[in-house]
Amino acid sequence: MAFQVAVCGPRYCTDADQANAYQVGQLLGERRAVVICGCGIGVMAAVAAGVRSRDGFVVGIRPGDSRAGASPDLSVTLVTNMGEARNAIIVWSADAVIAIGGSWGTLSEIALAKRRGGIPVVSLGGWQLLDQSGQPVEGIQYVGTPEEAVTFALNGGA
Amino acid sequence: MAFQVAVCGPRYCTDADQANAYQVGQLLGERRAVVICGCGIGVMAAVAAGVRSRDGFVVGIRPGDSRAGASPDLSVTLVTNMGEARNAIIVWSADAVIAIGGSWGTLSEIALAKRRGGIPVVSLGGWQLLDQSGQPVEGIQYVGTPEEAVTFALNGGA
Amino acid sequence: MAFQVAVCGPRYCTDADQANAYQVGQLLGERRAVVICGCGIGVMAAVAAGVRSRDGFVVGIRPGDSRAGASPDLSVTLVTNMGEARNAIIVWSADAVIAIGGSWGTLSEIALAKRRGGIPVVSLGGWQLLDQSGQPVEGIQYVGTPEEAVTFALNGGA
Amino acid sequence: MAFQVAVCGPRYCTDADQANAYQVGQLLGERRAVVICGCGIGVMAAVAAGVRSRDGFVVGIRPGDSRAGASPDLSVTLVTNMGEARNAIIVWSADAVIAIGGSWGTLSEIALAKRRGGIPVVSLGGWQLLDQSGQPVEGIQYVGTPEEAVTFALNGGA
Repeated sequence: MAFQVAVCGPRYCTDADQANAYQVGQLLGERRAVVICGCGIGVMAAVAAGVRSRDGFVVGIRPGDSRAGASPDLSVTLVTNMGEARNAIIVWSADAVIAIGGSWGTLSEIALAKRRGGIPVVSLGGWQLLDQSGQPVEGIQYVGTPEEAVTFALNGGA
Repeated sequence: MAFQVAVCGPRYCTDADQANAYQVGQLLGERRAVVICGCGIGVMAAVAAGVRSRDGFVVGIRPGDSRAGASPDLSVTLVTNMGEARNAIIVWSADAVIAIGGSWGTLSEIALAKRRGGIPVVSLGGWQLLDQSGQPVEGIQYVGTPEEAVTFALNGGA
Repeated sequence: MAFQVAVCGPRYCTDADQANAYQVGQLLGERRAVVICGCGIGVMAAVAAGVRSRDGFVVGIRPGDSRAGASPDLSVTLVTNMGEARNAIIVWSADAVIAIGGSWGTLSEIALAKRRGGIPVVSLGGWQLLDQSGQPVEGIQYVGTPEEAVTFALNGGA
Repeated sequence: MAFQVAVCGPRYCTDADQANAYQVGQLLGERRAVVICGCGIGVMAAVAAGVRSRDGFVVGIRPGDSRAGASPDLSVTLVTNMGEARNAIIVWSADAVIAIGGSWGTLSEIALAKRRGGIPVVSLGGWQLLDQSGQPVEGIQYVGTPEEAVTFALNGGA
């Protein structure tokens, strides 16, 4: 059974996020992980392109009701017609989650993955969380490079 | 973009259903359609095995919260944790639906596919529907063989 | 804990369906059952109006992403943004299901309720099902009047 | 059409969270808002009890597949069988969201509400978010008392 990695990130992302997403996709493709993404623009399109550049396999999980306009880099596209509730499916299907950049949708995926528990969650260039005392909330691995993100994800957080 | 065909059917199926499902899987695999199934036993496992025997591609959409016990024939497994609501995802993701055998779950997939509309829905060995006047309900193509089912599905109902 | 009854039926229904739905709503309202419906037009609007005419309580479960246009007869409206996957929520929330009239959406609700099992499912003026041998599929109580439908639903199928 | 307020918070909450939740429930009940909650223990149970103490109306949206064990304070209980994907339904159904305390599930509800947009989101005693530059992420109203939370929510963020 292939290792499945969800890669999440904003539709409207920075150039750095986009470059990171493409490189994360390349690394996961090279290592034959199946990549699961949200099937939109920005980080989602960049990671799909990266995976495809290495002949890897990438699944898109669409929030809307059709495949129209989906990236041609996707190996297969699932249509949920469930809006952002599809974020729950993305993280439940994953053995590890890599979040690239910060947005509300991305944050919901991190939160749903941590709520589920039991899988590594990595953040590359994303938002940070402070608890009620102003201390960092534990449970997210913050990394600085695509290589670190992929290594942490594939090692199961070990 | 690959043509995506949902193949639905009972967990507890007849021997004929199982043989039909395996053969439908083979035919779809040979013709390079992506197959989407519900990731359970019975018809679902048989169609996955058929696809795999032809090195085809088959996606399983699980109702539960884990991939444990999923068929090794599946190319990729999505975990919805949404119970039978995942039936809606199966049919929304499909360019055609083939139902093999009869059960309540299978009927829900036929009904959701027809409620969505716009794609061919084929029934091989399944239940029949009569309207309030006792007349057959239109909109389902009843066929007698796996070859007919696949031909109708791939031709878009034409 | 109040008894919760799902009432399902077509958007585009017959006059008889509409009259039946209104009367089923009245009877359930009088008997203080909570009614759950799909929050659309046709049977869904008629049952809500019937419940309200008896100062009963009726919940609408919307498939779309807003409450705009929801019937003013609804006591509360839940917005799922999940399309017809909301049908699964309607039947999971119910202690009994009454289907009035025939349509694909209505059939999906009957099928999902039977797939779940354990609750009475009543059909008033709906489609009929035949199995592979041409025999009626068991498990749905076909009734002829709103009074019979409500009595069967509230008695738990007994 | 009644104003609908989602109140979210941890299962395992502090005493302060619990007291805040009860008081928020009382205030919303007095002002005749419909309260929507996640139907669990902790903050969810406390807000339901607060609403009920004022004869208000409170809807529970369950993640599991049954109503067994649901709080008797709930006016009506919807069963989604969709796990934490039900968080999307809670926020889509709301005209305003009040989050009390911090947890991953609560964070997912805040994030999904902001991803949807267009409604006020209030945090009482919850986590804080910093963007990539270490600056607070805008869009959440942090308040110090139940009264402030309810006032902000009911005024539509104005």
